[in-house]
Amino acid sequence: MDQFDLQNPVFATYVIAATLMILKAVGMSWLTVIRMMKVKGGFRSPEDIRKTPLNPAPDSKQLEPNESVERVRRIHMNDLENLPFFLVAGLLYVVTGPPLWLAQVLLYGYVASRFLHFAAYFTAQTHDMRATLWTVGSLILIFITCRTLIAALGF
Amino acid sequence: MDQFDLQNPVFATYVIAATLMILKAVGMSWLTVIRMMKVKGGFRSPEDIRKTPLNPAPDSKQLEPNESVERVRRIHMNDLENLPFFLVAGLLYVVTGPPLWLAQVLLYGYVASRFLHFAAYFTAQTHDMRATLWTVGSLILIFITCRTLIAALGF
Amino acid sequence: MDQFDLQNPVFATYVIAATLMILKAVGMSWLTVIRMMKVKGGFRSPEDIRKTPLNPAPDSKQLEPNESVERVRRIHMNDLENLPFFLVAGLLYVVTGPPLWLAQVLLYGYVASRFLHFAAYFTAQTHDMRATLWTVGSLILIFITCRTLIAALGF
Repeated sequence: MDQFDLQNPVFATYVIAATLMILKAVGMSWLTVIRMMKVKGGFRSPEDIRKTPLNPAPDSKQLEPNESVERVRRIHMNDLENLPFFLVAGLLYVVTGPPLWLAQVLLYGYVASRFLHFAAYFTAQTHDMRATLWTVGSLILIFITCRTLIAALGF
Repeated sequence: MDQFDLQNPVFATYVIAATLMILKAVGMSWLTVIRMMKVKGGFRSPEDIRKTPLNPAPDSKQLEPNESVERVRRIHMNDLENLPFFLVAGLLYVVTGPPLWLAQVLLYGYVASRFLHFAAYFTAQTHDMRATLWTVGSLILIFITCRTLIAALGF
Repeated sequence: MDQFDLQNPVFATYVIAATLMILKAVGMSWLTVIRMMKVKGGFRSPEDIRKTPLNPAPDSKQLEPNESVERVRRIHMNDLENLPFFLVAGLLYVVTGPPLWLAQVLLYGYVASRFLHFAAYFTAQTHDMRATLWTVGSLILIFITCRTLIAALGF
């Protein structure tokens, strides 16, 4: 059986985890849009204070950073620092043929850690809690990457 | 036939779309370099105002943000928020075996939306136009990701 | 033989290069954490100056940018602009069936250029040296991407 076939349960596990993480990252873009529309600000480009149908009453204050928008941007940035690497590491990890239960624990564990990280960051929990949740995901990422590297080296 | 073989026209479509998007993103790095050299500024690190062959007359003003450079950096940032996720989502979408015409509409449509987004952002069109073009690409990305997730869940 | 099998030496070469680059990027996150703990600052969110076990003596100055932390963040940002695209471009390049020696020169050459770029940036070498090392990696990335695009177009 082809390893990159949805009939392979380890690959299907990866695809579910990967698509959930992609939707999570895209969701951050939309959440930024929603918050910018709500506060009518947090814009970044000079042309964004031109009068348009979506911005009928422009004001130069719309270009100032808005904490409600900046919070989502920081969460999004944290995704950009983590998710693209998880997406590729997870795909390559499938090639090492791990047992299904282990793949599920690691990949779904990563997904859970990232959704909890979002919940903690979005609701402004302490830095300690956010860092703990990030660490769980990061250690899973390091584990699957090292496991894959070792397999590729032939050990 | 292997699904990840260039003989598979859906995979070839993905590879063409993916490589064009990678070249687009790398192009933003080079455009940043070109603009920094043109304005001799927009640098970010303290050591960048040391006297070197490429910077014979350094000045502390070279570390100030330069809008001509910052505009390209914002476009680049928008790519980083979108393209890595498209690259993985598109690859996984190939596994679902979509009809060729649909894959072409979605993947080439995404590529077109991103090049038009670049043109609109680079020439400082209204936020409304830029947002509309970004939305087209984002909806395509959400569609192929959801379609792949549903296939992986076995529906 | 399946092209995405570790028995394929070109794919194994890619997996080694890719996992090293993923570990490098994740390492930048950890280096940021280490430096933030060392200087007890360089934080970004308002809640980060709440009193917690890991931050027993909070101070509003902890939210100011700290150059020692910012340097690692700039290096990290440079990774985000480059590595996700290399990771996908390298995977697709495997499909074109390049000779092993060429794949090794390009993929390991890229890895070497990025580790040297890190060393130059981390120790604040001149912008010229950093730019030169970045250029080597960027040209390799452009080469493998164009080669793959040409193969996908059927030439």
